[in-house]
Amino acid sequence: MSSEFSIIKKFFQQIPSDKDVIVGSGDDCAIVRVTEGYELALSIDTLVLDTHFTLNTRVTDVGYKAVTSRLRDLAAMGAIPKWVTMSLTMPQVDQDWLCQFSKGLCEAIREYKIDLIGGDLSRGPLTITVQSHGILPIGSAVLRRGAEIGDSIYVTNTLGDAGYGLTLPDGNTALYRPVAQIAAGLTMRDFASSCIDISDGLLQDLQHMLTASSVGATVYVDKLPLSETLQGLPRDTAVQLALSGGEDYQLLMTIPKKHIAQFELAMPTRVTCIGEIVEGSELIVLNLKGERYRVMQKGYQHF
Amino acid sequence: MSSEFSIIKKFFQQIPSDKDVIVGSGDDCAIVRVTEGYELALSIDTLVLDTHFTLNTRVTDVGYKAVTSRLRDLAAMGAIPKWVTMSLTMPQVDQDWLCQFSKGLCEAIREYKIDLIGGDLSRGPLTITVQSHGILPIGSAVLRRGAEIGDSIYVTNTLGDAGYGLTLPDGNTALYRPVAQIAAGLTMRDFASSCIDISDGLLQDLQHMLTASSVGATVYVDKLPLSETLQGLPRDTAVQLALSGGEDYQLLMTIPKKHIAQFELAMPTRVTCIGEIVEGSELIVLNLKGERYRVMQKGYQHF
Repeated sequence: MSSEFSIIKKFFQQIPSDKDVIVGSGDDCAIVRVTEGYELALSIDTLVLDTHFTLNTRVTDVGYKAVTSRLRDLAAMGAIPKWVTMSLTMPQVDQDWLCQFSKGLCEAIREYKIDLIGGDLSRGPLTITVQSHGILPIGSAVLRRGAEIGDSIYVTNTLGDAGYGLTLPDGNTALYRPVAQIAAGLTMRDFASSCIDISDGLLQDLQHMLTASSVGATVYVDKLPLSETLQGLPRDTAVQLALSGGEDYQLLMTIPKKHIAQFELAMPTRVTCIGEIVEGSELIVLNLKGERYRVMQKGYQHF
Repeated sequence: MSSEFSIIKKFFQQIPSDKDVIVGSGDDCAIVRVTEGYELALSIDTLVLDTHFTLNTRVTDVGYKAVTSRLRDLAAMGAIPKWVTMSLTMPQVDQDWLCQFSKGLCEAIREYKIDLIGGDLSRGPLTITVQSHGILPIGSAVLRRGAEIGDSIYVTNTLGDAGYGLTLPDGNTALYRPVAQIAAGLTMRDFASSCIDISDGLLQDLQHMLTASSVGATVYVDKLPLSETLQGLPRDTAVQLALSGGEDYQLLMTIPKKHIAQFELAMPTRVTCIGEIVEGSELIVLNLKGERYRVMQKGYQHF
């Protein structure tokens, strides 16, 4: 019989690299010192077997994505990632599973230069909850609710690639090794009036932004940035994936006209203007001819 | 079909009362301003159906305890509770369950004057993950590792009551409405050399403290504080519950001799000295005659 403590020690205890970690795993709480003049951004989420991954998903990828999926929320605020905590529920102690899972988890932690500072193990159905913690200068968080009429709508990189991966038997890199847009988040902070990360599909997440900001939007199908792979698919398939495919991990931002030139110059990733914020509350999707584009599916529904 | 957003809005969105909450639920992250000169204490844990509660457990109690079980970790550090986040996984949207669960959860939140600042809902087996966040003056956290030879070992209130509740068909208040010892935690901070909350049974949690501090301990069975109810049970049953019963929510502290008088005077709850820290690494349990007491079970095993 393995104890919670021996499992944590073997697979998840690491020496924190950050001097602001006063106490890491192994006590009643983790203790972190928060830098003066900064705010703390927090995001929590759970990955569930058969809902968010299957027994066929590579376990290292599950561990990797458990971390990066929480960092994308920090990126969308413009925060610098600092620490993660994890609560892991497992039906039994499977050393091989734990070994692979912790390998993927630690890869992400090293890659993003953050620390795992606390956690908990329980017996039960396989679920993984991670909370991320980032900091940002007081008042600098980019919220969903700041979009204003006339702002241009931008996205990072390309859309629909992870959604396409979901249709492939073996998935793809965009689906299993997604990149949290941290550097893009830190840069857009100086320019964007609002930002959200695309996780449930462009249209659904844009709708959240519009609702929060009490505005409408026009999106041009022909401006959607598509990867070479998606450009090789039937046009309609690619566009539907870009509009509604989940798990994209890209940032959706609104940029006031006066900042556009500087924003485009400063951003460390490719950014594409896909539309603009308009009066009203409607989200309108148009093709090149200016006709309404018929959207098949609005994106991922949690229930 | 209910969306994640409508469920959060209906059952869990509240207007934060704390001015340090800059952004609560509903954006990519919650944003909190951390007071200058303080450290942040974090604790995460998951409650799983059939592991930590059953379908017979009153749903309001599950919601209540989901919060208080995380606050006890803050108490054991000497932290002031500030905010909680939650990730809730459910097989389907059950409005009645959600109504009762959020009722219990909000009761605890009001009682401890904290805010629920963020959360997430997923489809899957019923599990509830809560993370608590508290603050404490820089350098004032009371850790598990500070116990020194000659320190007296103290506990708050009485032991074994929740463990006894586990043996009753309807449980009891100690089990379902446990009190996180926040006030006791804030006071002991000025006196204790180490502290841990008793959640897996006195002996098991004391052992964690001894291991972390590289010391041994002697505990006197006849000094264990027992409630009137436990005093009415067969002596041996009561003692075993006090030594090994889980879910006690009491604080276990080591107090240097020079602080004892002031500590006992200052504490807002009953405290009892049950033994002392000794050289070596052994945990010895003695009866009044100075004989070794045979311990039946060491406490809750997570695996």
